Amino acid sequence: MKEIASLMSYRPSIKVIDATLRDGGLVNDFYFTDEFVKALYLANLRAGVDYMEFGYKASTEMFDVNKFGKWKFCNDEDIRAVVGENATDLKIAVMADVGRCEKKDFLKRSESPIDLVRVATYLNTIPAAVDMIEDAANKGYEVSCNIMAISNAQEGDLRTALDILGQTPVDVFYIVDSFGALYPEQVARLTDIYVNAAEKYGKKVGIHAHNNQQLAFANTIEAVGDGVDWLDATYASMGRGAGNCAMELLLGFLRNPKYNFYPAVQFVDKYMNQLKKDGVVWGYDLQYLMTGLLNQHPRTAIQFTKDGRDDYTEFYREVVALD
Amino acid sequence: MKEIASLMSYRPSIKVIDATLRDGGLVNDFYFTDEFVKALYLANLRAGVDYMEFGYKASTEMFDVNKFGKWKFCNDEDIRAVVGENATDLKIAVMADVGRCEKKDFLKRSESPIDLVRVATYLNTIPAAVDMIEDAANKGYEVSCNIMAISNAQEGDLRTALDILGQTPVDVFYIVDSFGALYPEQVARLTDIYVNAAEKYGKKVGIHAHNNQQLAFANTIEAVGDGVDWLDATYASMGRGAGNCAMELLLGFLRNPKYNFYPAVQFVDKYMNQLKKDGVVWGYDLQYLMTGLLNQHPRTAIQFTKDGRDDYTEFYREVVALD
Repeated sequence: MKEIASLMSYRPSIKVIDATLRDGGLVNDFYFTDEFVKALYLANLRAGVDYMEFGYKASTEMFDVNKFGKWKFCNDEDIRAVVGENATDLKIAVMADVGRCEKKDFLKRSESPIDLVRVATYLNTIPAAVDMIEDAANKGYEVSCNIMAISNAQEGDLRTALDILGQTPVDVFYIVDSFGALYPEQVARLTDIYVNAAEKYGKKVGIHAHNNQQLAFANTIEAVGDGVDWLDATYASMGRGAGNCAMELLLGFLRNPKYNFYPAVQFVDKYMNQLKKDGVVWGYDLQYLMTGLLNQHPRTAIQFTKDGRDDYTEFYREVVALD
Repeated sequence: MKEIASLMSYRPSIKVIDATLRDGGLVNDFYFTDEFVKALYLANLRAGVDYMEFGYKASTEMFDVNKFGKWKFCNDEDIRAVVGENATDLKIAVMADVGRCEKKDFLKRSESPIDLVRVATYLNTIPAAVDMIEDAANKGYEVSCNIMAISNAQEGDLRTALDILGQTPVDVFYIVDSFGALYPEQVARLTDIYVNAAEKYGKKVGIHAHNNQQLAFANTIEAVGDGVDWLDATYASMGRGAGNCAMELLLGFLRNPKYNFYPAVQFVDKYMNQLKKDGVVWGYDLQYLMTGLLNQHPRTAIQFTKDGRDDYTEFYREVVALD
């Protein structure tokens, strides 16, 4: 039985983060139309979403700006073209992928439309993540640290990482189930580790789930019940491979009257379903279940999808052989 | 933390029930080819499934045999044509829908290929269900009682019903989330009521989930952790509306080496995906999320699907108005 056992009360500390452009951008190389992005911003405002992640702030020295849409790079002026001075309650986030971005691309917060920098890292790049976190915090940003591929982590390494991060100015520790491999019971155990460390250091905990086993929403609400406050979601689950926790499911579940389900429905109806009709492919399917079950990176399943293959049985033989 | 907390052990008392023909038959009016049914039987054998539900034993006086495939009626000779003498560990089940079937259609178990009769009832038809249960038990069958639409039940009524059923020869009490309205936390609470009653009367507990909120699998494994032993699933989630807990997800999760994931993949690959290509439509979509969220029967969402509508926003206005 969980803390919010009645399902009728709510925790005001809960925050909803829309990651549609960022994780969804991995599906379509960040080629969203300006109309789409503007409509998404307005939908988030109406739905009561707390943060909107615009994309990555990727290094233009490492990545060719001609091969990706602008939200892989998230120039401040591109964000301003959508949000203006953003005199709203909706905060703006970008992702800083450790080793693929540069500190010089981040202005001071007072000069930028960005509020939150989400530092994405693997456990073995924690020192570089700490460097990014300190830089972002010094510039005045809110900062989260999103530890990816957590289903492959050794518990001892994770505890050490959280102790290191606890001593930085980071605000939020994130559980990131990159492979969609976790069951709710495992989320409960991981959450216990994260929440204990967060309480020790005065931090918050977030979760970013993937839907390989149709558990992204279930794992997210399991985490809510266990004390996780920051919840990532994407409209129509748009995100890499099997996608993420669906915003419309999450908003339907949350009881805080600040959140509104209907604007989410309207956005999915008009914009996300159109993307699907236009041939953009993401979401739960057998190949993603297989890599999730095997706790593997979804890259083989994504390639299978891109190649238009439908020989699932043969694919399973291939991925089992990778183990 | 759940009973099977390690996720590495298993409970030998767990049973997996394939409901593809029965709940999936509600999607295509039970028009499965003989080849499909034979292949399903073989897949279940290879996957280690414990029970295969062939369909309903519907009254031929109430339903026109020319308007449905044969698995709405499940004549013993039709089952025998698939399973022969069924000298296997896979047991055969049919559903007896209270008020829509007749006791005279059930032979003695010794004369029938059927092992298990699943009596489906609403709370307000429990006395008629008891009558069916006693008849089936007297004829030698294993019997379950599947209490439908449990998300609308008053807890007091449910306790009374379980006390009545406890005094019958029924073997299994079933939690049936017909509307796909339950969250895992609610499943945990319901399971507590069912398991306590089951222990009092020496019965087992089962769960049949629907996927309106992408929680069919999550609710099923929540229930497993809470002591539920009988688990319904269907290949590729095929079932009414948003469908059910996917067999391939469930077999991937269960740790008992008697269960095999690969035959399930092969069957989905070859047969279920073909059904989809042939235009049979089921599975999670926004209209089912809406009726699930509102705890309504999915009939309006099914009609929306059948009509080929895609105006989800308008549909939400319609179903909210039904509340």
